[in-house]
Amino acid sequence: MTTLIPSKLTDEVVASYDHCPDPRVGAIMTSLVKHLHSFAREVRLTEAEWLAGVELLTQVGQFCTPVRQEFIALSDVLGLEMTIIELNHGIEDGATAATLLGPFYVPNAPELPKGALVCGNPPGEPLDVRGEIRDVKGNAIGDALIDVWQAGDDGLYSSQDPNKGKFDLRGRFRSDPDGTYYFKSVVPKGYQIPSDGPVSALMRLTGRSLFRPAHLHFLISARGCKSLVTHLFVKGDPHLAEDAVFGVRDSLIAEFKPNGGDNGKGYTLNYDFVLSRS
Amino acid sequence: MTTLIPSKLTDEVVASYDHCPDPRVGAIMTSLVKHLHSFAREVRLTEAEWLAGVELLTQVGQFCTPVRQEFIALSDVLGLEMTIIELNHGIEDGATAATLLGPFYVPNAPELPKGALVCGNPPGEPLDVRGEIRDVKGNAIGDALIDVWQAGDDGLYSSQDPNKGKFDLRGRFRSDPDGTYYFKSVVPKGYQIPSDGPVSALMRLTGRSLFRPAHLHFLISARGCKSLVTHLFVKGDPHLAEDAVFGVRDSLIAEFKPNGGDNGKGYTLNYDFVLSRS
Repeated sequence: MTTLIPSKLTDEVVASYDHCPDPRVGAIMTSLVKHLHSFAREVRLTEAEWLAGVELLTQVGQFCTPVRQEFIALSDVLGLEMTIIELNHGIEDGATAATLLGPFYVPNAPELPKGALVCGNPPGEPLDVRGEIRDVKGNAIGDALIDVWQAGDDGLYSSQDPNKGKFDLRGRFRSDPDGTYYFKSVVPKGYQIPSDGPVSALMRLTGRSLFRPAHLHFLISARGCKSLVTHLFVKGDPHLAEDAVFGVRDSLIAEFKPNGGDNGKGYTLNYDFVLSRS
Repeated sequence: MTTLIPSKLTDEVVASYDHCPDPRVGAIMTSLVKHLHSFAREVRLTEAEWLAGVELLTQVGQFCTPVRQEFIALSDVLGLEMTIIELNHGIEDGATAATLLGPFYVPNAPELPKGALVCGNPPGEPLDVRGEIRDVKGNAIGDALIDVWQAGDDGLYSSQDPNKGKFDLRGRFRSDPDGTYYFKSVVPKGYQIPSDGPVSALMRLTGRSLFRPAHLHFLISARGCKSLVTHLFVKGDPHLAEDAVFGVRDSLIAEFKPNGGDNGKGYTLNYDFVLSRS
């Protein structure tokens, strides 16, 4: 195990937070300073490398717009957002694992009736998604709001594609009193994280994969329960072991079964979500 | 001593750099990831705090312009630039201590004759600066280039003040064959780091002083020697113990002696600089 490297200079910087009015902010800043200095000492960072880091962070900040948060992307590819998820959403009592929200969520998608197709009549392989919403004791949760979003057959979310409507491949559904939910969509495709910004440049420089394995996003909320942000991944996707943002959990890999029904077309996904009581 | 906190997720992110083409970049990224995750776990960073951090870094990036590098300012107030200086300019053999360059250096100031006044005929208390440039064995270094810059009597650098010329309070001088140098200027005043950006907002939030004690900047270069970037601080300045960017070293605090000469006006600073051989 590596240890933090002490130094007089680090002590001096830490002491500068002695009069921080908010003790929590002071604790965060002093821990950050210790780790930042210790990182620099551990690798013996050169001036040129430090300046390259300054330039990268500047580019990341300048790439951000109201619809493109490149610092969240950086945080995600460094595994920081998933660290935060693990810290704040420990798996308790058999509840469904949480994973990251990601940058493509759009709030207030239309609320649709049970069994409806997500917005935009998207092209692709038809998919039926069914299951139950339960609490950790096995009680059905009715009237849960199931907010769904995904990339389409072309690997693009509506917010990335000017040819798609704002809420295409999105929808909100309610569970029945017996906890069951059901909606129709298309099988999502895997994709690469946006390849035009400084974060993708860093990924290429470091030999990392830009891929995210195919998945559906869920944000599930219900009265008396903690909200659950998660994905369901398509079993068999070739990129499950190299998700660029480290969101995959074994329990979130689900079988998309080919339909054996009348027309033999499309797939069915069955998945039950278990929420923690708040 | 705090130790790094291990985790399966951290191992997964570290392993993603296994195929990094440049081993040095891979070593930097994996150390960074370990410290970043360990910081988050140590303080149990919440989602709201993580998002506040993302927003702060975005603001810092968006505040940068070709003449204002707010990420260097952030790095400086966190003591990172001084950590880099300590790592890369260890004090060896009695050489003069290095300190940070800071954001106000402007290259290619006019070269002026020995004894000349720095550019711009600046108002303020007259100051004579004299001394020798030597190597660590005590040999005089002639023809050393002594690049000088400073804030004026109003605490502002020329690059901060539209009323000043580009090279005001700046100049480059040469040492004589016997190593001596001499120039005239005015006594520098202390100042606060720029108070309009996100870094100063963070400083105020955390109860830290924005002050830098009064100082002169030097960049000294000579054939066969390592370049020296340093400051000389005014002894007695009230902010020596709370420099916002942690640049003060005891050996760089110098006495600005009142002149006892004919007119009794002004001050004299005597300081010898010792360079390491390259």
